[in-house]
Amino acid sequence: MDWTCPLPLQDYPGIVIGHGGGGKLSAELVEHMFLPAFRNDALESLGDSSVLAMPAGRLAFSTDSFVVKPLFFPGGSIGDLAVNGTVNDISMSGARPVYLSAGFIIEEGFSMSSLAQIVQRMAQAAEKAGVQIVTGDTKVVEKGHGDGCYINTAGIGIMPHGLHIGPALAQPGDVVIVSGTIGDHGMAIMSVRESLEFETTIESDCAALNSLVEAMLEVSRDIHVLRDPTRGGVASSLNEIAGQSKVGIMIDETKIPVKSDVHSACELLGMDPIYVANEGKLIAIVAPSAADAVLARMRAQPLGSEAQIIGTVTSKHPGMLVAKTGIGGTRVIPMQIGEQLPRIC
Amino acid sequence: MDWTCPLPLQDYPGIVIGHGGGGKLSAELVEHMFLPAFRNDALESLGDSSVLAMPAGRLAFSTDSFVVKPLFFPGGSIGDLAVNGTVNDISMSGARPVYLSAGFIIEEGFSMSSLAQIVQRMAQAAEKAGVQIVTGDTKVVEKGHGDGCYINTAGIGIMPHGLHIGPALAQPGDVVIVSGTIGDHGMAIMSVRESLEFETTIESDCAALNSLVEAMLEVSRDIHVLRDPTRGGVASSLNEIAGQSKVGIMIDETKIPVKSDVHSACELLGMDPIYVANEGKLIAIVAPSAADAVLARMRAQPLGSEAQIIGTVTSKHPGMLVAKTGIGGTRVIPMQIGEQLPRIC
Repeated sequence: MDWTCPLPLQDYPGIVIGHGGGGKLSAELVEHMFLPAFRNDALESLGDSSVLAMPAGRLAFSTDSFVVKPLFFPGGSIGDLAVNGTVNDISMSGARPVYLSAGFIIEEGFSMSSLAQIVQRMAQAAEKAGVQIVTGDTKVVEKGHGDGCYINTAGIGIMPHGLHIGPALAQPGDVVIVSGTIGDHGMAIMSVRESLEFETTIESDCAALNSLVEAMLEVSRDIHVLRDPTRGGVASSLNEIAGQSKVGIMIDETKIPVKSDVHSACELLGMDPIYVANEGKLIAIVAPSAADAVLARMRAQPLGSEAQIIGTVTSKHPGMLVAKTGIGGTRVIPMQIGEQLPRIC
Repeated sequence: MDWTCPLPLQDYPGIVIGHGGGGKLSAELVEHMFLPAFRNDALESLGDSSVLAMPAGRLAFSTDSFVVKPLFFPGGSIGDLAVNGTVNDISMSGARPVYLSAGFIIEEGFSMSSLAQIVQRMAQAAEKAGVQIVTGDTKVVEKGHGDGCYINTAGIGIMPHGLHIGPALAQPGDVVIVSGTIGDHGMAIMSVRESLEFETTIESDCAALNSLVEAMLEVSRDIHVLRDPTRGGVASSLNEIAGQSKVGIMIDETKIPVKSDVHSACELLGMDPIYVANEGKLIAIVAPSAADAVLARMRAQPLGSEAQIIGTVTSKHPGMLVAKTGIGGTRVIPMQIGEQLPRIC
């Protein structure tokens, strides 16, 4: 990272309570860390809120807090996650994300240079995704009342006219597509936490999916549901869709792409990749007439090159997710009760 | 509070890690606590983001995280603060707040009924302010890595056509108005923390200011700056405005309304009310021709009944806030360095 601590921050190798106090120290943090990283006109107006031009019509609005542990992991950091997570939540309604907010809750004593790295990664992720961070807030809590740095982002996207995508819109006959290998993010985090060693490092798939969604919508608007299977993984997302759409979903387990080292890590830890979090994958539920074209377009994109059709929507067993297993049987895949991987995002 | 724990939550008197896991427990918390409290169509669609109709034009976008300690205090709670704080930030651009997001970071073991009380107070505050909480997120962190409950809200407001209000727009000759007594919120928190006893309980002024702003804008659009003096108080807000507008601000200390028990508490703790946080007050910087009409209209509103003209904007000493003191002298009121009251909001 090329960040060097600017003069007014140099007296503070770690965050102090006053950096969240709304006084001179807060102002210095904003002026010398946040503004240079996120630079844009709306942010620089430094009002209590940012004023933004928007076209008439509908917008998408979403929020997510990030408490991932560790803060830096192979393939990403809490900063990348905080930007991409909200970009993706907005993209899953079919909207084009444009503006983000960023709220930091920082623990007293947190390293100033780690914060700078996180902020720089947020800025890079925002630039890559084509969104602007236009408003923010920083609070500092006493040592022992946080865990380094928590970040909330909220985001605004512009909805294309006449487009309707939502978790209650799956229809019997629809095709279920996943955009690539599953479980990468969760197992990247777990292999760091558990110090697992494999031949290769498992990297998080953390990425902004808005460009992929845009490409998909160019070939067809018969996309009924989009969902990024984060916490709870593909299993939870499909269960929620089955419940909200009042349909059954039947998937073929052998069709679900899983990287071999992710598979090994899951076996070692007794986990099922279908429940493991992803941060750069989406599930699309698409009208059967559009499925081939959408799949082909996804595969032509870097973020969808390993996309697969993994199942279909059925009027049978409404509310339930059922899988054909590798050995020719079927099993019900329930919603998980709690959490197998705490603080994954 | 009339909240009774619904059946699916009854097995959990306290929050467990799984309530933030994106599985069944998360879904139960959403279905049985958040949805009944915040009920609206956008939230109930349960998508990754909410889709909202908006008119063409400009919108205001703002975010704030709340880490106040204690979570409940005379006159409010973190829930009221989280709603009113963001409503106010949006109102300070002259926009009409309409939608909020809510992101919870909850510590494992936090009381389910306290969470329910906070959520209910958020719902009441939102209803009172006329805004909807349309999207949300819940994360749970392990015991010892939080402090009960942190809340982030972000908000969207609709900007009236052609209106321009901002901290860089103060002009020499403008009049500085404060909407009522200052320091109430900060001293309400401090008197609980320090177990101070006065004849009356000092109550937070926590309130949504959008109705007051709307009334003010009805009588004049010659309002150049609006600011809610939260962290750092009136002193920090006026210093920031002086800096951003490149003007001087001269105030008359004897004109600033302070409640007598707030004054006493400040004396006892060695604090200056001008640096103490407010959560239901605003500063308006208004063209001299409009000042009397705006002041009269403020005084006709419950939230502005004690409004006062406290000073003027000058081309002298740009960037500085100067006060005439009670004994006839003048003093510079600088930006405070750090924080005199940590975790005040």
